[in-house]
Amino acid sequence: MRLAELSERSGVSTATIKYYLREGLLPPGRRVSATQAEYDEEHLRRLRLVRALIQVGRVQVAAAREVLAAVDDEEQEHNNRLGAAVWALPHGPEPDESAPETAAARREAGRLLEAMGWTFARGLGDESPAFRMLVAAVAGLARLGYPYDVAHLTPYARAAQGLAGPELSLIASYESPAEQVEAVVALTVLFEPVLLALRRLAEAEESARRFPGPTTEAVRRAVADAEAGE
Amino acid sequence: MRLAELSERSGVSTATIKYYLREGLLPPGRRVSATQAEYDEEHLRRLRLVRALIQVGRVQVAAAREVLAAVDDEEQEHNNRLGAAVWALPHGPEPDESAPETAAARREAGRLLEAMGWTFARGLGDESPAFRMLVAAVAGLARLGYPYDVAHLTPYARAAQGLAGPELSLIASYESPAEQVEAVVALTVLFEPVLLALRRLAEAEESARRFPGPTTEAVRRAVADAEAGE
Repeated sequence: MRLAELSERSGVSTATIKYYLREGLLPPGRRVSATQAEYDEEHLRRLRLVRALIQVGRVQVAAAREVLAAVDDEEQEHNNRLGAAVWALPHGPEPDESAPETAAARREAGRLLEAMGWTFARGLGDESPAFRMLVAAVAGLARLGYPYDVAHLTPYARAAQGLAGPELSLIASYESPAEQVEAVVALTVLFEPVLLALRRLAEAEESARRFPGPTTEAVRRAVADAEAGE
Repeated sequence: MRLAELSERSGVSTATIKYYLREGLLPPGRRVSATQAEYDEEHLRRLRLVRALIQVGRVQVAAAREVLAAVDDEEQEHNNRLGAAVWALPHGPEPDESAPETAAARREAGRLLEAMGWTFARGLGDESPAFRMLVAAVAGLARLGYPYDVAHLTPYARAAQGLAGPELSLIASYESPAEQVEAVVALTVLFEPVLLALRRLAEAEESARRFPGPTTEAVRRAVADAEAGE
């Protein structure tokens, strides 16, 4: 397909596609004349991933280039490729090793992985950016005086564990290894705001249950009335 | 306590505390002389919340001021106060009403709340910034061609539901209504990176299980050896 069609099918403007091409985020099309190139389904798929990274994941262009290098590294074992692509995503602030809470946070995070039976993640330890992200987040709880022991962290680990099965099944449903690596990156990024939004909604629902008042009753009554009228 | 002690006990520099005082994020201390003021436990607690918002939640000063106004609005019903404080947090991009995917995303999001039995959240609908955040996130999945139907969203809603009970119990463990409102804001913000980090770790663990190779085996063996040697 030509650039115009690639733009139409992807919903990305031709100017943005040209920018991605210039930045090396999208491989060049097959040149068919001095001024025209031909693009294929792989370009369309890659464009989808680049948009997920940049527009949803707020990944910088340089970091996106790193993610894509990992995605394209076909020499690697499949699990390493999946991991490397996710590792190249931004993970927020690194743990502050000069802060006194960091050692305690690292210990509790390690105990949590042990309690969950996550042997592979435990073995990677600090090599894994997700583990360092966890340590930094737990240290933040500790520094501000909130509970951060294994008992308080376990519900979050269980919630995460409940997602891993369906997520990997979805990823495995893509045919080629390349598509799977793209999917793991895109889905990691795209489902993050879904999860955070649902957490806030579930919190609001539970809060309304525990602390009912005239407003919560009025809202529920309006829903019941709308249903009765349907 | 004096400013120096407030700084020491909170771990926040005196310069930063003075900045928060100037910006109205922290109420002034009780003046005891022309140059000195006295601070109390409430200042310490408020400082903890301000740091959680600004340093962990990356909330802008103006938005933090809005959150604190909601926290301090004692006229409101308790559930409304908890909700208003969380509503004032940043929620990411608003749904793009000009995009064709947004209507479909809103329909699926509504169906999901109905399937989960979240009547209060359904009644609030688009009034709730968390619901609009969900619609925008689901529209992102749709726009990029990833599945976004109720079946694919349900595991995320279940994971969120599993967190709401323990979270509200932790919040209810704080004595005064004011402390509870502060806690709901701080814990909403502080546990977000914990949850996202654990999701990536659980994904890595599940991926290692499904796609084992020389690397995953070596990592697991190293953990087993370390344990045998303990």
